[in-house]
Amino acid sequence: MPTSTATPPTDGLAGAPGGPATVAALVEAATRALAGACAERKGPLPARTPRQVADAVREALGPLDGAAPAGPGHTIAADVLTRLTRALAAGAADPAHPRCAAHLHCPPLAVAVAADTVASVLNQSLDSWDQAPAATAMETQVVAELADLVGYRGEHAGGVVTSGGTESNLTALLLARDHALTASPGLDASRHGVARAAGGARPRILCGKVAHFSVQRSAALLGLGEDAVVTVDVDSQHRMRPAALREALLRLRADGDLPVAVVATAGTTDLGGIDPLGAIAHIAREFGVWLHVDAAYGGGLLFSRRLRGLLAGLERADSVSMDLHKLGWQPVAAGILLTRERALFAPLSRSVDYLNPTDDEEAGYPSLLGYSLRTTRRADVFKIAVTLRALGTDGLGRLVDLCRDLALRTAAHVVGEPRLVLAASPSLTTVVFRYDAGEHSDTVNARLRRRLLREGRAVVGRTQIEDRVWLKLTLLNPDTTPDDTASLLAEIVAAGDAEAAALKETR
Amino acid sequence: MPTSTATPPTDGLAGAPGGPATVAALVEAATRALAGACAERKGPLPARTPRQVADAVREALGPLDGAAPAGPGHTIAADVLTRLTRALAAGAADPAHPRCAAHLHCPPLAVAVAADTVASVLNQSLDSWDQAPAATAMETQVVAELADLVGYRGEHAGGVVTSGGTESNLTALLLARDHALTASPGLDASRHGVARAAGGARPRILCGKVAHFSVQRSAALLGLGEDAVVTVDVDSQHRMRPAALREALLRLRADGDLPVAVVATAGTTDLGGIDPLGAIAHIAREFGVWLHVDAAYGGGLLFSRRLRGLLAGLERADSVSMDLHKLGWQPVAAGILLTRERALFAPLSRSVDYLNPTDDEEAGYPSLLGYSLRTTRRADVFKIAVTLRALGTDGLGRLVDLCRDLALRTAAHVVGEPRLVLAASPSLTTVVFRYDAGEHSDTVNARLRRRLLREGRAVVGRTQIEDRVWLKLTLLNPDTTPDDTASLLAEIVAAGDAEAAALKETR
Repeated sequence: MPTSTATPPTDGLAGAPGGPATVAALVEAATRALAGACAERKGPLPARTPRQVADAVREALGPLDGAAPAGPGHTIAADVLTRLTRALAAGAADPAHPRCAAHLHCPPLAVAVAADTVASVLNQSLDSWDQAPAATAMETQVVAELADLVGYRGEHAGGVVTSGGTESNLTALLLARDHALTASPGLDASRHGVARAAGGARPRILCGKVAHFSVQRSAALLGLGEDAVVTVDVDSQHRMRPAALREALLRLRADGDLPVAVVATAGTTDLGGIDPLGAIAHIAREFGVWLHVDAAYGGGLLFSRRLRGLLAGLERADSVSMDLHKLGWQPVAAGILLTRERALFAPLSRSVDYLNPTDDEEAGYPSLLGYSLRTTRRADVFKIAVTLRALGTDGLGRLVDLCRDLALRTAAHVVGEPRLVLAASPSLTTVVFRYDAGEHSDTVNARLRRRLLREGRAVVGRTQIEDRVWLKLTLLNPDTTPDDTASLLAEIVAAGDAEAAALKETR
Repeated sequence: MPTSTATPPTDGLAGAPGGPATVAALVEAATRALAGACAERKGPLPARTPRQVADAVREALGPLDGAAPAGPGHTIAADVLTRLTRALAAGAADPAHPRCAAHLHCPPLAVAVAADTVASVLNQSLDSWDQAPAATAMETQVVAELADLVGYRGEHAGGVVTSGGTESNLTALLLARDHALTASPGLDASRHGVARAAGGARPRILCGKVAHFSVQRSAALLGLGEDAVVTVDVDSQHRMRPAALREALLRLRADGDLPVAVVATAGTTDLGGIDPLGAIAHIAREFGVWLHVDAAYGGGLLFSRRLRGLLAGLERADSVSMDLHKLGWQPVAAGILLTRERALFAPLSRSVDYLNPTDDEEAGYPSLLGYSLRTTRRADVFKIAVTLRALGTDGLGRLVDLCRDLALRTAAHVVGEPRLVLAASPSLTTVVFRYDAGEHSDTVNARLRRRLLREGRAVVGRTQIEDRVWLKLTLLNPDTTPDDTASLLAEIVAAGDAEAAALKETR
């Protein structure tokens, strides 16, 4: 290795000799600041209004290029890092706090976070082999293992790590669109556009009424339009009714429309409903339509011996989304998209002179460029690989079981509390309920949730079911106990009482 | 805070009390393993074939759920983490090594990496305020600061942190598409689909001939089709010719086509060409077409007092992409999309019951959901904020200047080496050249590059210009010296000599 004649102009690169030690020292300082700020915050989020939070952040940031800080570069770096870490932690909604239970927003595992740091130091980028030799191989193997878990044959399956369920769903629907809109020879949607490739027929996507809004968003992006989405009736547990799906497909056929994909959901955002995958797969096959399963939430059940049976039929889908930053305890991002066959990714395949020239591929240099909508792409697979080895699927499965048991126990508490009404018994790890304030329930529930936020007491979810406001606990913290959630429910009842009383006073 | 009655079932959450200290200890162990493995690797990448790299990774991973490792959870975690860190680092292409100079693949700053770890521990998600109170405020402020740098009025501008230039370009072109395809009242592309909203006209996107392939890819995704992209002639420095753009727009007008956007490039991937932004902005305005500037690479010039003048006219664009994981020394991902006015993001705005209900927004809870194609979204802004404060724009500007000076010095070396031919003098920080082997130049250059990879000696880029194979050094390492690149060029010449000789022998 040639030695440089000059002193390196920065002592600050993570990968330079001595760089990793600098990173470790900075992380040590930052995590100490972080722990302190979290302890000072006391609750799951700051007891501040959004404006107060923004003011505190502005003050911590100071003006860009304000007074130049004094001292050597690494001291300044450590000072800035600890100051801003304190500000971020003081103003965080902390998913590791037992009373932060609103969203599919998990507390990550320490080992996954540390692995993520390694990914940052090495900064491998998966758009070409020569930016990520080992990471390319690692993603290939881990994707195959996850495909095996789904019930695909890993060695034939395709897949990619994504930024999350939204990107996974979008990618799957792009593949499905181009699969459906190449029926006419020599015309395809990616090359010639939707208008010409559809040849006058109207492309449609079918999904359950409470499927994730990213289905509509994807339809918009893909040029099909949101109103290309046909929503299918669901039951009281928010599961798609197969008979309604069949009727919808027959109707489209009669209208001459072109069904591009059926999107089933394994774990709706609110009730955690899992569509009857086997029956839906049967219908999709009968009509020759691509079946995509959005298992962003429910995919984690695959880790649990006890619960994976709930996903029976998943292996019959053409493509599956799952998010390991939900029931997988990864820091964001750790989305996955899998396809039954690798060849289904064909519409995304590209040969780019500067990334994967043909003769390099012929010489044995693999390229993952054709699996992703992105070009530069972080090695998010590394933290997933480390977690799968450190905990094993059974270790992750135990965490899934704990959260599911917690949801059942919490739902029982709700049932036992006269002022609360349970929406449905938990399918996965959410508990949906509301404070009963009679005709004022919508207002009181919306307000009690904001009161808990404002006072820094709890982060509780809310949603709308059949035009009514409901509250939601999304339980993803395996360290949270039934006592914790009982105390959280007591907080909610107290806040509901206060809001109901306040409402009465102002009337 | 209620105390749990049971012992927490995992001691492994990053955000639990004691979690940050666990993270720091794991990072310490991992970075030691990483430094060791990088030193052992010796060169910028492993001296192995892709198959050998894959075999080594497979061996390090072992089978999923193989023999259960013994010992307490945190010991297993540390063991797995260090084992796999060694494997990843041993098989990495190391952007911090002076002979790894192929791609827009930068060595990240230690302080940015440490900040990224904080983002992972807190795991804030920017799709709703109650998953990221302070991070929401921080992104809002930092985006406004970057907009100011571009020359927008920060308080009116819109913007968002993305996964990179490809996502930024896609988002911008979605906004432009919906802006153009809502001409007919009551019809828009996101709601009603491209086919109906275009009303028979053919939507087109214009860009320079050597613009990034993500423009075509975006057109495909957006349902316009790749062949909706009209490429405009460029000069020998790969800059779009304004006269050619005007002609192309006149032709589209004559054909009754609908121009959706002009995409100018500030820093092409190969020659670093910067389109004449002022002249292009003038033409785009004249024709009433959205101007997007892909400054993924060149945007970093904004930090340099000496070089920012090269981007004159940027402030007249409707939208701008820039990547701080290129000339900004961030670990991936640190993409940025900015728009002149916040309202230009309107096509993405969404009200989602469980994320940003209207009455919450009225109560002062801000939401960034409507700025991003993603839903769950990591606080990548944090490392950017820390870097901007730790180095200041001038500190970053000095790194930009160093890389640019290095490119000029390296190009001079190329010119002085009789067996090498320079393609063009550097516009930014790339040096494009080839080994001159007469009629066999294409074969020899492709092979010499693979030889350097195979032998673990250097990661050199390659590309195709006018159907000829060229080599490329992308210089993003401010610690690399002209002596380093001189020695790298000597390696390239030696490899070229060897391949030219080998070729002669087999003929």
